[in-house]
Amino acid sequence: MAEKHSQPDSLDELCVNTIRFLSIDAVEKAKSGHPGAPMGAAAMAYVLWDRFLKHSPHEPDWPDRDRFVLSCGHASMLLYSLLHLTGYDISIEDIKNFRQWGSKTPGHPEHGVTPGVETTTGPLGQGFSNAVGMAIAEEYLAATFNKPELDIINHYTYVMASDGDMEEGITSEAASIAGTLKLKKLVCLYDDNNISIEGNTKITFSENVGERFKAYGWRVIGPIDGMDVEKVTEAISAARESDSPTLIICRTIIGYGSPNKAGTASTHGEPLGTAEVALTRNNLKWNYPAFTIPDEALSHFREAQVRGRAYQDKWQDKINRYRTAFPEEYRHFELTLKGILPEGWDSNLNGLVAQQMKPLSTREASGTILNAIAAKVPSLIGGSADLSPSTKTNLKGVADFTRENRSGRNFHFGIREHAMGSICNGIAVHGGLIPYASTFLVFYDYMRPSVRLASLMKQRIIFIYTHDSVGVGEDGPTHQPIEQIAGLRSVPGLVTLRPADIAETVESWKIALERNGPTALVLTRQNLPLLDRTRLPFSDVKRGAYILWESDPQPEIILMGTGSEVNIVLSAGQLLGQNGVKVRVVSMPSWELFEQQPNEYKEKILPSTIEKRISMEAASPFGWERYVGSKGVIIGINHFGTSAPGNVIYEKFGLTAEGVVIEANKLLGR
Amino acid sequence: MAEKHSQPDSLDELCVNTIRFLSIDAVEKAKSGHPGAPMGAAAMAYVLWDRFLKHSPHEPDWPDRDRFVLSCGHASMLLYSLLHLTGYDISIEDIKNFRQWGSKTPGHPEHGVTPGVETTTGPLGQGFSNAVGMAIAEEYLAATFNKPELDIINHYTYVMASDGDMEEGITSEAASIAGTLKLKKLVCLYDDNNISIEGNTKITFSENVGERFKAYGWRVIGPIDGMDVEKVTEAISAARESDSPTLIICRTIIGYGSPNKAGTASTHGEPLGTAEVALTRNNLKWNYPAFTIPDEALSHFREAQVRGRAYQDKWQDKINRYRTAFPEEYRHFELTLKGILPEGWDSNLNGLVAQQMKPLSTREASGTILNAIAAKVPSLIGGSADLSPSTKTNLKGVADFTRENRSGRNFHFGIREHAMGSICNGIAVHGGLIPYASTFLVFYDYMRPSVRLASLMKQRIIFIYTHDSVGVGEDGPTHQPIEQIAGLRSVPGLVTLRPADIAETVESWKIALERNGPTALVLTRQNLPLLDRTRLPFSDVKRGAYILWESDPQPEIILMGTGSEVNIVLSAGQLLGQNGVKVRVVSMPSWELFEQQPNEYKEKILPSTIEKRISMEAASPFGWERYVGSKGVIIGINHFGTSAPGNVIYEKFGLTAEGVVIEANKLLGR
Repeated sequence: MAEKHSQPDSLDELCVNTIRFLSIDAVEKAKSGHPGAPMGAAAMAYVLWDRFLKHSPHEPDWPDRDRFVLSCGHASMLLYSLLHLTGYDISIEDIKNFRQWGSKTPGHPEHGVTPGVETTTGPLGQGFSNAVGMAIAEEYLAATFNKPELDIINHYTYVMASDGDMEEGITSEAASIAGTLKLKKLVCLYDDNNISIEGNTKITFSENVGERFKAYGWRVIGPIDGMDVEKVTEAISAARESDSPTLIICRTIIGYGSPNKAGTASTHGEPLGTAEVALTRNNLKWNYPAFTIPDEALSHFREAQVRGRAYQDKWQDKINRYRTAFPEEYRHFELTLKGILPEGWDSNLNGLVAQQMKPLSTREASGTILNAIAAKVPSLIGGSADLSPSTKTNLKGVADFTRENRSGRNFHFGIREHAMGSICNGIAVHGGLIPYASTFLVFYDYMRPSVRLASLMKQRIIFIYTHDSVGVGEDGPTHQPIEQIAGLRSVPGLVTLRPADIAETVESWKIALERNGPTALVLTRQNLPLLDRTRLPFSDVKRGAYILWESDPQPEIILMGTGSEVNIVLSAGQLLGQNGVKVRVVSMPSWELFEQQPNEYKEKILPSTIEKRISMEAASPFGWERYVGSKGVIIGINHFGTSAPGNVIYEKFGLTAEGVVIEANKLLGR
Repeated sequence: MAEKHSQPDSLDELCVNTIRFLSIDAVEKAKSGHPGAPMGAAAMAYVLWDRFLKHSPHEPDWPDRDRFVLSCGHASMLLYSLLHLTGYDISIEDIKNFRQWGSKTPGHPEHGVTPGVETTTGPLGQGFSNAVGMAIAEEYLAATFNKPELDIINHYTYVMASDGDMEEGITSEAASIAGTLKLKKLVCLYDDNNISIEGNTKITFSENVGERFKAYGWRVIGPIDGMDVEKVTEAISAARESDSPTLIICRTIIGYGSPNKAGTASTHGEPLGTAEVALTRNNLKWNYPAFTIPDEALSHFREAQVRGRAYQDKWQDKINRYRTAFPEEYRHFELTLKGILPEGWDSNLNGLVAQQMKPLSTREASGTILNAIAAKVPSLIGGSADLSPSTKTNLKGVADFTRENRSGRNFHFGIREHAMGSICNGIAVHGGLIPYASTFLVFYDYMRPSVRLASLMKQRIIFIYTHDSVGVGEDGPTHQPIEQIAGLRSVPGLVTLRPADIAETVESWKIALERNGPTALVLTRQNLPLLDRTRLPFSDVKRGAYILWESDPQPEIILMGTGSEVNIVLSAGQLLGQNGVKVRVVSMPSWELFEQQPNEYKEKILPSTIEKRISMEAASPFGWERYVGSKGVIIGINHFGTSAPGNVIYEKFGLTAEGVVIEANKLLGR
């Protein structure tokens, strides 16, 4: 096979083999990693980076760069090789530290850790879907800001994907959206090597991927020989002129060059081993010691820096002309790119609270607040997985983002929660936009992997989860979240907010917009009684928990609740107070924010001397021991829900003020 | 449109409208529900149930019945109507109690609640994937037990799916598997009505579903007029003769018959309203009061009971002949169908513990145990989402389940965790088999919705999750679970087991096989030091937690751990013991099982008088306060992991015996 693809002594072949052997050597040194994919896909990646990719190694975050996503994140050494070779701030020492503690070259690419890594990949299908989000962000920003002859945003999004990516359902979801939206500047290089961990993909994956993508509305090129640089060049050239997203099916050989292991699963996830590395060097006529980069190859790769500066200069010139011609738009553009909220963005929010005179669901409150914010923050865009009439996330008087209209801000993700989450991650890491995504809380489960990645990448994304408890009612246990709130709270870095009324919902939205990371808003379907904020202290969501009401500043018992249960524990507290109990009622919209408070504040709200405590949340009691302690009572739901009207379920499940009073009296020995 | 489809006065039309109006009336009475889908799909469903479905209303669990899955579970009234009309134990009162507390007719179909409901549906895509599992179970059982002319298992699996099902990624995964496996007795009726909640599906779903399914290897029939009984009849007849799974694309009109709402999203999820119901009655010339079933229709539908008895009689005759001709096979068949484990199935397991002399990962231990059990329990089948070499779930010397070999027991699900979970649910609810599914613990997130449904349906399924902590090492944070153990523990009804060594792993497997519900086994990638069971008390996993070692029967401090951290807390305990501390070390493989113990036992293991407690688990500390209390120390990981060798991470993250000793000394004031 080597004969077929190599043009001995050609510069291209030298460069491709440089990538291969950097990858092989790094995996070998780390005694861990995935050499097979970089060896097979080196030519594809080389062509893209050498002949097409618009990027600037000196300024990895330059806004109008093409985006490159390695969806098959296990091929990380392919990407690190390219970053090092083209002159990013990744030294050969970093390459030698592949997969070691504190290195810039972790096992899978991590956004924020390594310059030039656009998104964190590894869990298959996520990168592909992120790329769809990036292509959407590009279209939106271009449509919003570009002016004739001043296309200040105009770039491609390239994604390299593997068989595994193609098998994951999230990829199908995202590909269908990309086809529907005709995201023509999205190009996927599909590294089709027919090998997965359990062996040949035939045993599990006999489908025709090309036909499948055509059905989604993609242009499909290939299968081509993905190790032939000219064939790949032709294909990418054609893809860039397409009026649809394009899939280039590149047939490759995993572990190409390894005499005994090429084309087998054994090159996928472990080092080749010293002997086989030697044989591979011999086979590909690579006579350099480990980690050696031939000068000729290096100087060729480093031309990327020169090209990069030229790209930037040209862009800067456009920007200068844009700034002069369209100063107002430029100001917006700059704020948007920097992710800065416009001054006064939240000035009309507090008024919404005072206006509220009737019972209201927090989803309705959220919808009103979202619309008020969106009117002032143009970079806030998003939508729902086919539930916007229920999640109240439609922006009123604002267009849809569609195939025809790229400046619409209402997104329709279809019934595809997982891709929705991952597309929002892609929009966020692209830069310039603040995405939100909404569905019912129970369907958070469908998108949990994307929410995790949002958190790992510390992206400002607002996940809006409505229908947050058995209060959903008749739809029954499949639609009633029980363990999902605990699920959200357990994700490191995510802030979960479950507001009790419009006042807390306003604050929750403010926190979400100002965070440097993702936020989950957990909202009710059902109306909640009005909490009279003229008589109750103003809410203090940013501290996570606060005293909502107390009958005595030296309480003997504390009642806690979140969201829809706050009014229940308040009623219980007032009943107890009328009977002479010294009681405090605490609203606790966010565990994570409360944990961030100084001990002094925590002790003020939940003094350790008061061990009589009751919490109520219409959800799994999981984790409430942290605040209730071992002497208190946790009122929650330790089983699945049931189909019945929501108020009946609350009653039958004991989620009532009377229930709290009974437990309180027991604790108090009355 | 009415003219086109109705054949006024025909019995078929009368029956179809009977389904429509029962559904309309039930939704109207409940003031909640989804009338549109039953109205549009009534004809399709009627044809299937009237002319094809092999079932016996008197004996809903008759083993060789055709399976019918309503993947679009929101159309539940369609199914309840059919169940009532054909004579299942669902009365008209049950229909009137649609969506009420304690009724047999919950908002979405629930397996175990309603006779004739094969699986719990509602979360879209799950039913479709369950159906793939059922078709697999049928093929496996048929191949295993049938004899020439004695096809004691020979049935179809029909699934009705909606646009929403088609959009969900899990459906793509399952459809690709079904195509690869050529599950020819699987027939999907796709109710293609072009409407979803946010409006016309064009805005999100422009793909060609038929071409997509062809790409998966399905036969595709249609689009046909899904409201024309003869066209549907022809299509189903053809599908039954196919040599691939078949998708029948049935164009329908959501809310068919409603003059003002047909074809709109407003019929999807709310009652039509009194006025529109009256207009619909008028339009379809339905002059009966609410909940009235015309005698002629009822007697026609009830012929299903007669047919059902005939099906059963014929089958019973085959069974009788089978029992005579193949008594040994029959005995197996009976045990299998009843889910009874063969006598002595676990007799060779304890020996495995004694043989173990070297450090071992619990994934390796599990693989050995699984193979030992599988040798004695032929109904145990399963596989992995392309990770069996890593999860150690391959059955040695056993064939693969493939297109060609239906009696293979090793399944290759491909990189499709979500469909894997849901297919296993389908295999389990089909009856006769005990499925297991495996992947890395972090990818539990990809299949969380299926695990939830396994739990809601109380199915005996074993979820094997390996690579259970930062001990995974170099693959980094995308592959290192942190919050997943808490995620599992929070699911109602699921039992999570994290064994510390081979002895605990043996017991864990026994528990999993004997449970009436799903179990998650959480296993290490890395080797663990041997726990010397000749010197330590035998493990007691079934009680959830037990005393592994103590320096004094009246301890002053308790150390707790699970899985890979047990040997660390044991070392710490022994160090402390050597320094005169009265210390107890508790191994706690399962919170759920410990919670089920009497208070006396719990108090024995964790006496409330001993408040100095330390837990260690290489995972989120979420929820450990339950056992550690407010005076103790929880050693866990409150952030994401990192890429480095596993032992380095343990050291840097403070997951060491020395770390425990330091905390213990602090607690003890030493």
